[in-house]
Amino acid sequence: MPAAIDFYFEFSSPYGYFAAERIEALAERHGRTVDWHPLLLGVIFKSTGVLPLTQVPLKRDYVKRDWERISRLTGIPFKMPSVFPIASHHPSRAVLFVARSNEQAAKDLTLALYRACYVEGQNIGEADVVCAVAKGLGLDADAIAEGMADPAVKDQLKHEVGAAEARGVFGSPFVIVDGEPFWGFDRFDMLEAWLERGGF
Amino acid sequence: MPAAIDFYFEFSSPYGYFAAERIEALAERHGRTVDWHPLLLGVIFKSTGVLPLTQVPLKRDYVKRDWERISRLTGIPFKMPSVFPIASHHPSRAVLFVARSNEQAAKDLTLALYRACYVEGQNIGEADVVCAVAKGLGLDADAIAEGMADPAVKDQLKHEVGAAEARGVFGSPFVIVDGEPFWGFDRFDMLEAWLERGGF
Repeated sequence: MPAAIDFYFEFSSPYGYFAAERIEALAERHGRTVDWHPLLLGVIFKSTGVLPLTQVPLKRDYVKRDWERISRLTGIPFKMPSVFPIASHHPSRAVLFVARSNEQAAKDLTLALYRACYVEGQNIGEADVVCAVAKGLGLDADAIAEGMADPAVKDQLKHEVGAAEARGVFGSPFVIVDGEPFWGFDRFDMLEAWLERGGF
Repeated sequence: MPAAIDFYFEFSSPYGYFAAERIEALAERHGRTVDWHPLLLGVIFKSTGVLPLTQVPLKRDYVKRDWERISRLTGIPFKMPSVFPIASHHPSRAVLFVARSNEQAAKDLTLALYRACYVEGQNIGEADVVCAVAKGLGLDADAIAEGMADPAVKDQLKHEVGAAEARGVFGSPFVIVDGEPFWGFDRFDMLEAWLERGGF
């Protein structure tokens, strides 16, 4: 069986959201499974000296337009949330915690959080909002609240972000398949060509 | 007749090179003409606080791989030049100078310079190399050498880079069609969809 695809995403990244809506179907078309990895991109930006999109006025204006355009072109719903960028520590810890016992539930929670943010405009940076979204999926919100505050979960997230950076991950979304890195939702066509042909 | 497409490019940008190889055919498929605009992206980066790709080690490694991959996927030849990034003042001034009397010759010179750099590995940052490439096209190399040194041409380039930034241009390639901006060679599919449908 071919190796799983590694899918890295940041909750404060609309491009990550669009990718999360598509990655499983893309992988499935080529007989692949997907391992999902939440990122704290702010930590990686700090160490690489990169400015977040939203801190460069020209880019900020452009990407807002681009997100809306991608939504119209792909049919994936998108509405700019009123709080943006969002603090991604809480949702990232929550999905890591849930993944410990149930990987599928963690993926479902990730998508539900992304949609709460980029369709319903909720501030998923807040622990309470994360818990409410988890509850809506029938998950144990109390356990998740404890998980988000657990130093072991915090450490795990830090460790995993460090491991991602060590593999060369510097943006969201970021996919690694058989050692080959693909940065950006706009590389999904290339990723698909790569999987189809077994590299090129 | 529909308005011309504005195509902005930086000589020190392989993505700009790939785009230059494709923009005219793309525009022609939709009955459009193209106005070509050389950029000094370093000037814009300075004012926006953005780091060039090559100053972020993780990105530098990634984009080198990405350029080679795009070449294999599209069939556009590419070889990493030994001198990179290149200083783009001379080639940019040369094409502006040539465009004053002959727009088509300026486009031909742009493509010839790009190919000299990204196929043959020449350092097109040097005025002598620019002249040699121009001579190879049958252009008046002596006039171009004078043009590159002409303060009026230098001022024109500064002015045009400022005008580009004022229009929201912050990267290479950058296309504006009917007021809609497209950043990156990886937006060419979207650009094509936009032209095909008259917006979406």
